[in-house]
Amino acid sequence: MTLSALDLARRVAAGEITPRSVVERCAEAIAGRDAEIGAFVASDLAAARRAADAPGLAALPLAGLPVGMKDIYDTADFPTAHGSPIYAGCRPVADAAMVALTRRAGGIVLGKTATAEFASNAPVPTRNPRNLAHTPGGSSCGSAAAVAAGMVPVAFGSQTGGSVIRPAAFCGIAGFKPSYGLLPTPGMKCVSWSFDTVGLFAAGVADLAFAAAAVSGRDLRVDGRPLPLPTIALARTHLWDAASADMASAIAQAVGAAEKAGATVKDIALPPIFEQAIAAHQTIARYEAFRSLAFEYDRHREQLGSVVRDQLDEGAAVSADHYDDARRTASRARQVFLDTLADGTVILTPSATGAAPRGNESGAAAFNRLWSLLGTPCVNVPGLADGQGLPLGLQIVGRFGRDRFTLAAAAFLEQAIERTGLAQSARAESCS
Amino acid sequence: MTLSALDLARRVAAGEITPRSVVERCAEAIAGRDAEIGAFVASDLAAARRAADAPGLAALPLAGLPVGMKDIYDTADFPTAHGSPIYAGCRPVADAAMVALTRRAGGIVLGKTATAEFASNAPVPTRNPRNLAHTPGGSSCGSAAAVAAGMVPVAFGSQTGGSVIRPAAFCGIAGFKPSYGLLPTPGMKCVSWSFDTVGLFAAGVADLAFAAAAVSGRDLRVDGRPLPLPTIALARTHLWDAASADMASAIAQAVGAAEKAGATVKDIALPPIFEQAIAAHQTIARYEAFRSLAFEYDRHREQLGSVVRDQLDEGAAVSADHYDDARRTASRARQVFLDTLADGTVILTPSATGAAPRGNESGAAAFNRLWSLLGTPCVNVPGLADGQGLPLGLQIVGRFGRDRFTLAAAAFLEQAIERTGLAQSARAESCS
Repeated sequence: MTLSALDLARRVAAGEITPRSVVERCAEAIAGRDAEIGAFVASDLAAARRAADAPGLAALPLAGLPVGMKDIYDTADFPTAHGSPIYAGCRPVADAAMVALTRRAGGIVLGKTATAEFASNAPVPTRNPRNLAHTPGGSSCGSAAAVAAGMVPVAFGSQTGGSVIRPAAFCGIAGFKPSYGLLPTPGMKCVSWSFDTVGLFAAGVADLAFAAAAVSGRDLRVDGRPLPLPTIALARTHLWDAASADMASAIAQAVGAAEKAGATVKDIALPPIFEQAIAAHQTIARYEAFRSLAFEYDRHREQLGSVVRDQLDEGAAVSADHYDDARRTASRARQVFLDTLADGTVILTPSATGAAPRGNESGAAAFNRLWSLLGTPCVNVPGLADGQGLPLGLQIVGRFGRDRFTLAAAAFLEQAIERTGLAQSARAESCS
Repeated sequence: MTLSALDLARRVAAGEITPRSVVERCAEAIAGRDAEIGAFVASDLAAARRAADAPGLAALPLAGLPVGMKDIYDTADFPTAHGSPIYAGCRPVADAAMVALTRRAGGIVLGKTATAEFASNAPVPTRNPRNLAHTPGGSSCGSAAAVAAGMVPVAFGSQTGGSVIRPAAFCGIAGFKPSYGLLPTPGMKCVSWSFDTVGLFAAGVADLAFAAAAVSGRDLRVDGRPLPLPTIALARTHLWDAASADMASAIAQAVGAAEKAGATVKDIALPPIFEQAIAAHQTIARYEAFRSLAFEYDRHREQLGSVVRDQLDEGAAVSADHYDDARRTASRARQVFLDTLADGTVILTPSATGAAPRGNESGAAAFNRLWSLLGTPCVNVPGLADGQGLPLGLQIVGRFGRDRFTLAAAAFLEQAIERTGLAQSARAESCS
């Protein structure tokens, strides 16, 4: 039911379908399911149809594809509420940089997708398209659900802890947290300037890479070129035991599939500094949130949810010395990681502790915080599922700045899993 | 005519004067001179008086001092136009982090100060209080002029190239560009996410350090403790010849004063990578501006001034590979700088090529770009002047993260210059 961005863009460019027909297909999916899913908090199909009818779209990188933007990106054409009643109905003057770059690349911003309050790990307002009783994961819940339900082929989220990789995993789609700073954050609500990263969702890894290449103007695509045979390192941190039995089994299946496809798989020991680094993530994030959200905390505290308020209270208690120590730990860990992970090697680790839990929780970031702190590229590889059919996401992590190789290694793993026949049936269908 | 923030805050804390009386003094200076200077683009004295009358201010770090905010910081109580007709009259929903932190520390935001268009080096709308025929320097022209004319004791600016240090130098006041990331930028209009840095203006170095400590909660003050005897390194880059004869003479005077006060002064050779780094600054700044200002460029191009438009056109032509190369150069230069500059040593260099030129130009950033790229703390030390009485600013540059030592070394030089009797008569007077 998902829509392949790469396939749709190819067909538009070839003149087989029109941007308008893609908008209509998205409109049908939204009409059919968004009342129960709650992926969008604002959309404008009439404006999207007008935009799709503009001449010249097919020649642009995104070829007129509809895009969902997490509601923490400023938009001049839609209200932007950051998941908070403080901003209900507020409409910014300008588009965030990523919104403007999406339009510049020929994307059509169809609407704003639901977010947990201020992109935190507060409960999410959206339901998982794969099973409505379960969470889609937070904080980029609406973007992940919109792509998983075929409402848009591409959506943008953001990650500070695990807010892109985890919902992608829970919803069974591909998710990409690029290297820190690869995509611009101006106009995106900031909670932690050290970690906030623009991320993307799409049906599969090649779709992700296509969309990331289109908006960045970078050579990131993985389609139409041979994939590398990566060395895959299993990094069993002290958190490994947090993974569910189903997740451990999914990792074992992936290792088998990768080896069968010709990859070398080995264990890698992460030095003890990475344990400190995971703790440092929280210190830095809390300290910075108390400053980034100073206006909201000082002037509208009664309108903050309890999760956010408690986290800001914690941030108020972090001293500058403690923060500086944590930043030094982060800086050392980044250097050690470069020395630890050889070029041509990626790390394989769970994207989340297991499948999406029941309810509306955000989910745990145990397997995400370290990579957010290191600023490394991460990709959620979809394809496996637990006994109930709920997706289990696997994460490929690369060296800082090696975004294309990381995407290519993720595409390799995705294909290896597909080839073994283990992959579930939720793959993207083409728009014929 | 300038107002000493440190002295005013002490008197308020001691109960000798009230916050309200300080607001009145600022109001008098604004009424007296702002029609000819043009430092403020928006102010609200009635609101400032009400805020000053609130109980408890005297016990807060900023003790109710009035503060000017460059008009690129979002403010919920004032319009925020970024020096551009695109945003004329627009009022943001929320305060930028630095605005909220200023209020949190007990500062009163008196108004918004003029900025060159989008904090660029476009011509400035403000005149230099020291000589109205001359530029105050850009882009933080209004904040520097407001402090120099005694309209506020503290004002915030921002620096991407040289937009804090240069106007401080031209206006004969102290200016501080902290280490990159020391003060939060959320809610400040972004033009270059790699370089944009919150900066401050105040009458003298001790006033700067007091204000920076108050808003950051960090131990940055230099008053009431012995100053270190710094080693001062003269870094003669390939740009040294760009300095005017007056500036060369000011440097020589400062060296003499510092040696007389007991400092060691020596030459330091900067490796060739720093020449490449200065060029890399422009590549990175242009590439990022074309993305940060994508909305303005794509949707309101006809409302952009020619300087900004041309720079964005240049940014459009920078490839991702060229940008990545420049970032690698920047990263290497930061490491080499740490290896080059010993702890306990600061660099002495001109803050600008000379005194403020006639007219409304922004001024050259030749002596600023390198430090903006390195992210190092920089302080403009006032006190010297040319034959016409126009200020000549000297710059003290420290190691990344050594903000307190850099401020202390700048205070040392400021006092050394004062002690030699070379200092001009424009020092802060107290509010008796």
